[in-house]
Amino acid sequence: MIKVGIIGGTGYTGVELLRLLAVHPQVELRAITSRAEAGKPVTDLFPSLRGHVDLAFTAPDAAGLEQCDVVFSATPNGVAMQQARELLAAGVRLIDLAADFRLKDPTVWETWYGVPHACPELLEEAVYGLPEVNRQRISKARLVANPGCYPTSVQLGFLPLVEAGVVDSDHLIADAKSGASGAGRKAEVHLLLGEAADTMKAYAVAGHRHWPEIRQGLEAATGKKVGLTFVPHLVPMIRGIHATLYARLTRDVDLQGLYESRYHDEPFVDVMPAGTHPETRSVRGANTCRLAVHRPQGADTVVVLSVIDNLTKGAAGQAIQNMNIMFGINEATGLSQPGLMP
Amino acid sequence: MIKVGIIGGTGYTGVELLRLLAVHPQVELRAITSRAEAGKPVTDLFPSLRGHVDLAFTAPDAAGLEQCDVVFSATPNGVAMQQARELLAAGVRLIDLAADFRLKDPTVWETWYGVPHACPELLEEAVYGLPEVNRQRISKARLVANPGCYPTSVQLGFLPLVEAGVVDSDHLIADAKSGASGAGRKAEVHLLLGEAADTMKAYAVAGHRHWPEIRQGLEAATGKKVGLTFVPHLVPMIRGIHATLYARLTRDVDLQGLYESRYHDEPFVDVMPAGTHPETRSVRGANTCRLAVHRPQGADTVVVLSVIDNLTKGAAGQAIQNMNIMFGINEATGLSQPGLMP
Amino acid sequence: MIKVGIIGGTGYTGVELLRLLAVHPQVELRAITSRAEAGKPVTDLFPSLRGHVDLAFTAPDAAGLEQCDVVFSATPNGVAMQQARELLAAGVRLIDLAADFRLKDPTVWETWYGVPHACPELLEEAVYGLPEVNRQRISKARLVANPGCYPTSVQLGFLPLVEAGVVDSDHLIADAKSGASGAGRKAEVHLLLGEAADTMKAYAVAGHRHWPEIRQGLEAATGKKVGLTFVPHLVPMIRGIHATLYARLTRDVDLQGLYESRYHDEPFVDVMPAGTHPETRSVRGANTCRLAVHRPQGADTVVVLSVIDNLTKGAAGQAIQNMNIMFGINEATGLSQPGLMP
Amino acid sequence: MIKVGIIGGTGYTGVELLRLLAVHPQVELRAITSRAEAGKPVTDLFPSLRGHVDLAFTAPDAAGLEQCDVVFSATPNGVAMQQARELLAAGVRLIDLAADFRLKDPTVWETWYGVPHACPELLEEAVYGLPEVNRQRISKARLVANPGCYPTSVQLGFLPLVEAGVVDSDHLIADAKSGASGAGRKAEVHLLLGEAADTMKAYAVAGHRHWPEIRQGLEAATGKKVGLTFVPHLVPMIRGIHATLYARLTRDVDLQGLYESRYHDEPFVDVMPAGTHPETRSVRGANTCRLAVHRPQGADTVVVLSVIDNLTKGAAGQAIQNMNIMFGINEATGLSQPGLMP
Repeated sequence: MIKVGIIGGTGYTGVELLRLLAVHPQVELRAITSRAEAGKPVTDLFPSLRGHVDLAFTAPDAAGLEQCDVVFSATPNGVAMQQARELLAAGVRLIDLAADFRLKDPTVWETWYGVPHACPELLEEAVYGLPEVNRQRISKARLVANPGCYPTSVQLGFLPLVEAGVVDSDHLIADAKSGASGAGRKAEVHLLLGEAADTMKAYAVAGHRHWPEIRQGLEAATGKKVGLTFVPHLVPMIRGIHATLYARLTRDVDLQGLYESRYHDEPFVDVMPAGTHPETRSVRGANTCRLAVHRPQGADTVVVLSVIDNLTKGAAGQAIQNMNIMFGINEATGLSQPGLMP
Repeated sequence: MIKVGIIGGTGYTGVELLRLLAVHPQVELRAITSRAEAGKPVTDLFPSLRGHVDLAFTAPDAAGLEQCDVVFSATPNGVAMQQARELLAAGVRLIDLAADFRLKDPTVWETWYGVPHACPELLEEAVYGLPEVNRQRISKARLVANPGCYPTSVQLGFLPLVEAGVVDSDHLIADAKSGASGAGRKAEVHLLLGEAADTMKAYAVAGHRHWPEIRQGLEAATGKKVGLTFVPHLVPMIRGIHATLYARLTRDVDLQGLYESRYHDEPFVDVMPAGTHPETRSVRGANTCRLAVHRPQGADTVVVLSVIDNLTKGAAGQAIQNMNIMFGINEATGLSQPGLMP
Repeated sequence: MIKVGIIGGTGYTGVELLRLLAVHPQVELRAITSRAEAGKPVTDLFPSLRGHVDLAFTAPDAAGLEQCDVVFSATPNGVAMQQARELLAAGVRLIDLAADFRLKDPTVWETWYGVPHACPELLEEAVYGLPEVNRQRISKARLVANPGCYPTSVQLGFLPLVEAGVVDSDHLIADAKSGASGAGRKAEVHLLLGEAADTMKAYAVAGHRHWPEIRQGLEAATGKKVGLTFVPHLVPMIRGIHATLYARLTRDVDLQGLYESRYHDEPFVDVMPAGTHPETRSVRGANTCRLAVHRPQGADTVVVLSVIDNLTKGAAGQAIQNMNIMFGINEATGLSQPGLMP
Repeated sequence: MIKVGIIGGTGYTGVELLRLLAVHPQVELRAITSRAEAGKPVTDLFPSLRGHVDLAFTAPDAAGLEQCDVVFSATPNGVAMQQARELLAAGVRLIDLAADFRLKDPTVWETWYGVPHACPELLEEAVYGLPEVNRQRISKARLVANPGCYPTSVQLGFLPLVEAGVVDSDHLIADAKSGASGAGRKAEVHLLLGEAADTMKAYAVAGHRHWPEIRQGLEAATGKKVGLTFVPHLVPMIRGIHATLYARLTRDVDLQGLYESRYHDEPFVDVMPAGTHPETRSVRGANTCRLAVHRPQGADTVVVLSVIDNLTKGAAGQAIQNMNIMFGINEATGLSQPGLMP
C-alpha cells in the first residue's frame, strides 16, 4: 500500500483527490492537512465522503507527512515551493497540483505569478506530469509538476499536429471554455451561481497564466518558438473543459490517422471517430481526454475538439495517474470509472 | 460471474445500469436490447462508455436473454409484464425497473397506468425491491419490482416514524423535488433545457402514479390505511431527489435516536447528524439515501429531509443492490463509489 | 417627476431597482450610494445598464439624499434603522427593502437579528408594504417596510384561507424554494456555482428570519396565533421563489372562487385556472405573484402553489409598487413588462 | 398604430415577438397563427403573457393577415417562401425570421436547405435586415430577411475589420457559443435539460447553415471572397450567444477607435471599453450587441468578443427594430429595456 498525504484538502482538487483515493485499492490515506479546518472531520466539509473517509483535517505541522511515500500538494500557487525541499529531503515524493514547478524558467514564473520562486534549484529536476509526453521521466521522478487544466486539454489537442510539424505553429489559436470549478472553491462574487449561471464570458484575454505553460509544452514538442493566442471562457457548468483549437495546415496529412496513431497506446486519451463532437459530460468525473479532429470544408484550417474534466484529467485524476506511474503500478488503477452521464 | 442482460438500454436507467455494471467485478454483461437501435454500438449513443462497454444493442428477440442469470428490464411501464412469464419460465431472474410489478392490486395498477395488467398472477410473487424492508424476501426472489425514485426517498424518510407509530399517519405530507432525468430520456418540449432550466414548478398535484406506490409501502409498514398528500416538483438539475416530509407527532420521541437505530445496519442509508441538511449532490452517482430529521421550534411537526440520486438509489443502483442480494454476494459490490462532488 | 435616491446599490435588490427605475416614466434617479464603490460609474459594476444609467456611485454622506422625494434603502439588515430618523426629518419618504421595520415587536427583532433595534419608536408608524393588505395605509406612509421575498409569496398564498377562516391555522406548512439570488450578492462559498448548481438542499429548518415575519402577517389577518412550519430550500436557479403551501381544511369551501374573489382587483396577483401549476419563469423579471390552488384526491388538505420573482415582487418591484401608491400614480407604472420566457 | 400579424407563434421567436410587441406603444397585435394550436388562448401555452396578450391562436387561413400592415413570419425554414407572394400582393409587408430570403443565390439556398427555392424572383428584392448595414434599404423594403442569430453576432463583430481592410479575410475564425433556445422549441432528445445541462459540445463543425449567410454578408462588405472557419457550440444556458472572433492583422490600426467610430451612431451596438469582457447576461432580453476588441500580447491576432441575446437582437428584437425602421418611427421604440441581470 502506498502511504499518501494531502496538503491543503479543502479545495476542489483536494476533495477530488479524496474521492478518487478513497476507493483506490493500493492507497492508504494517512493525512490531509488544512490550517483553517484543523481538527474538523473531512466529512463535515464534504458529506459526500461519509462512509469513505474517516480522517480529520490536521494542521500542516502535525500531519506526519514525512512518514508518507508520496504527498499531493493541493494548495494555492506559491505554497508547495515553500515545502518541497523539506519533503524531498525526508524521502517523500511530491506531486504538486499547483503551478509552482510547471515553468522551467524562474523569471517567467515571477512574471506570471508575481513573486520570486522559492526554490529555483528544483525546477530542473521537477518533471512536468503529462504522462503522454513524459511517462518515462515521471516513473523516476521525486517531484512532479502536475499540469494545469487548460494546458492538459490544449496540449493533448495540439501535440499530434506540432510534433508532426504539419501546421503553422506561429499562429495557433486555443479557444477554451471551462466550468466554474476551474476557478477553485473560493468565495468570489463573480463565481456565485447568481452571477455565473445562465451566462458566459471570456476572461483574461490579455494574458492568462496558463498561456506560458502551454507555450513551454508546445515548444518542447517542436523545438522552436510557438505563437499562441489563448482565450479562456467561463461557462455555466460545474466541471469540464472544452478546448476548440485552430491551426493552419502547412501540408496535407491524414489527420484522423495522425491522431489515432499518436494516442494508440494511451489509456486516457480517446480519439473519437472522424466527424464527431465530444461532449464534456462524456468525461465527467473520468480521467479521459476525448478528442476529435476536423477539417471543415476541406480548407486549410484544422479544428481540434478536446474535452477533459478539469478536476480529473485536468488535476486530481492526472495526479493519481502520475502517482501510479511513479510507484510502478498499473497506470489506470483507481481511475477506471466511466464518466457520469447524464 | 453473474451473466446479465438488459432490456431497453437506451433510457437513463439503462445507461446508469451500464455505467455501474461495466465496473462491477462479478458481472458479465451479455446483452443489451433496443428495438430502435439494434445493431448500433452502445458507445455510439453513450460515448461516456467508450472503453468500458463493447456491446452493440440487439433486437429483443435475438438477444439470448434466456441464457442470462438475471435480466434487468429498463423499459417503459407496461413492457416487462409482457415478458416476465417467458423469462421466469426459462429460469432467468427478473428485476423490473418500471412500475409493472410494484402495485399488488391489479385494479389499482389499471387505474393509474391505464391498461389491464398482463400477468396479475405474478403480482403476489413479485417482491418489492426495497432492501431496507424486504431484504430476506429479495434474497430468494425470482421477480423483483424495483421501487420508483420518489417512493424510495419518501418511504425511507417516513418508515421510522410510521413503523414506530409516533405520527398521525392520516395526514402525511411529502413535498418532493426531482431533477429532470427523473422524467426519462424522452423528447418532450417541457423537458427541454430552454423550458426547464432556471425555473421550477410543481406538477401532477391532482395525482401522481407514485402516490399509490408510496401509500402501499407505508400501509404495509403500519398495517393500516395511510393518508398522504404528495406533491412532486421539477427542479433545474439533472439528477437528484430531495423529499421534504412533514408529519404531526402524536407522542414525544427521540427522533435522532429513532432514525439512527432504524438504519444502523443499512449500508446505503446514512442518517446525518441532528441539525444538518443533506444536499442532493452528496449522493450524485452514489447508491446512498441520506436523511436528516428536524423538529423546528420544538413544535409537534416533524420534518424529514431525504435525498437520493434518482438514477442510482432511485433506480439502477438499487436494482444492482437487489441483484447482489439475490445472488448472495456482498450487497455493496460495485456500488461503493462516493458521490461526485462538486 | 419623483426624485429618487437609492442607498446601497451594489446588491441584487439595488441593481433590480436600477433596472426598473431606469425605464420608469415618472422617476428621476438622483443618487445611488455605495461606500465601497464611491466614484465608480454604476455601469462598471453592471454593464447591463450601459446606456440606461449615467450615475456613479456616491458616498452615502455626499449623495444629497435629503433632496430626494423618496429613498429606497437596499442595504443589509440593520443599516436603514440607523438612517431613518434623519431622512424622515428631512421630509424624505423611505422604503426599506431590508428587514429593519418589518417586525412590530423590537424584542422579536432583537431575537432574530441579533442586535437591539436602533429606532423602535418608528416601528409603529412603519407600514408593512404588502399592497394587497395595506394599500390604504401605504398611500399615506412616510416609512414603508418592504416585505421579504419568502413572506410575500407565502402570505399571498395563505391569505385567502386564513382570512376566510377555513383552515386549521395552528398547523400551516410552507415548503419554499428559492433561487440563489435570494441570498444576495455576497461572496460565500456555499453560493458558488460550483457548490449550488445541479444540486438542492433545505436550510435553516430550525428557524429562519422570515418565519416570524410570515407569522406576524398571518396573525394580523386572522386576529389569533398561527402555527407555522417553514422550510426554505435553495434550488439551482438565479431568480424565483416557489412556495408550496399545505393546510388542513376545517370546512368545505369553493377554493377556486375564494382565491379569485380575494384577488379579483389586484393588478399583481394572478390566480391561475383550477388544475394548473405556475412556473417561476412565468414571472421572471415581472412583478406578479401567480397562484394556483389544489385539493388533491378530494382529501382535507389544500395545496397552494405560489410563485414570484424574489427580486421583483419579492423585493424591488414591490418597492416600486409601493412608491407608486405613495405618490398617487398608477400602481402599475413602470411595472408592466411580461416575464422573460424562455 | 401598426397592425401586426404573426405567422407561427408557438416557437421561441414567436413568444419573444409577443413579449416585446405586447408592450410596444405603436403596435396593435391583430393575429397570431398556429395550425396545431388553433383556437387555444396564447396564454395557455405561455402563461407569462397572462394579462398582456388576449389573443387565441388562429388557423393560418382564417387569420386575416391581409388586413395587417406587417406580418412577422416566425415559422420553420421553408414556410415563408410559400406565402410571401400572396402577402406582398395584398400590400402587406413581410419580415421573415427564418432563412428563406437571407441567401441571394437560390442554388446556395438549395445546397444548404435541401429544397428548391419557391420564389427566387423575390430574392433580389428582399433586404437583409441588418440595420447596421442596410438601414436605408430596410426603410423602403416590402420584404425583409431577418438575419440569423449567429450571423448577427459574427458580422457585427467582424464588420469594422473587414470594411477597413485591416485583416487577412481569407482566414477568419468564428468560435461561437449559443444557449439552447437557439435550437428552437423542438422536442429533441439532445436538447433535454438532462442531456444539455452541465455540459457543452461543438456541433456541425463540418458545415452549418449560418456559414454561407455570414460569408455572404462579409463578402458584401469587402467586395471579395472571404475564407471563414465557423464552429458553433451548444452551452448550458437558455439565451445568449458569445462569438469569439479571430483574425490576423495585416496592418497596424487603432482597434478601439475603429470599433467606436464604426458604431458611434448605432443605438443597439455597444462597444465596451478596451480590456473588458462582455457577458451574455448583460444583454439578456435586450436588443443590444455588446462588443469588445483585444490584441493579446500585442501579437498580430485580433480577438473580438461579441455577445447578443439570440432571441432578441438575434431574432425578434431585431425584427421589431426593422419594423420600426420600415414604418418610420423611432428605431428604439419598444426595445429600450435593459438586460435582465442577474
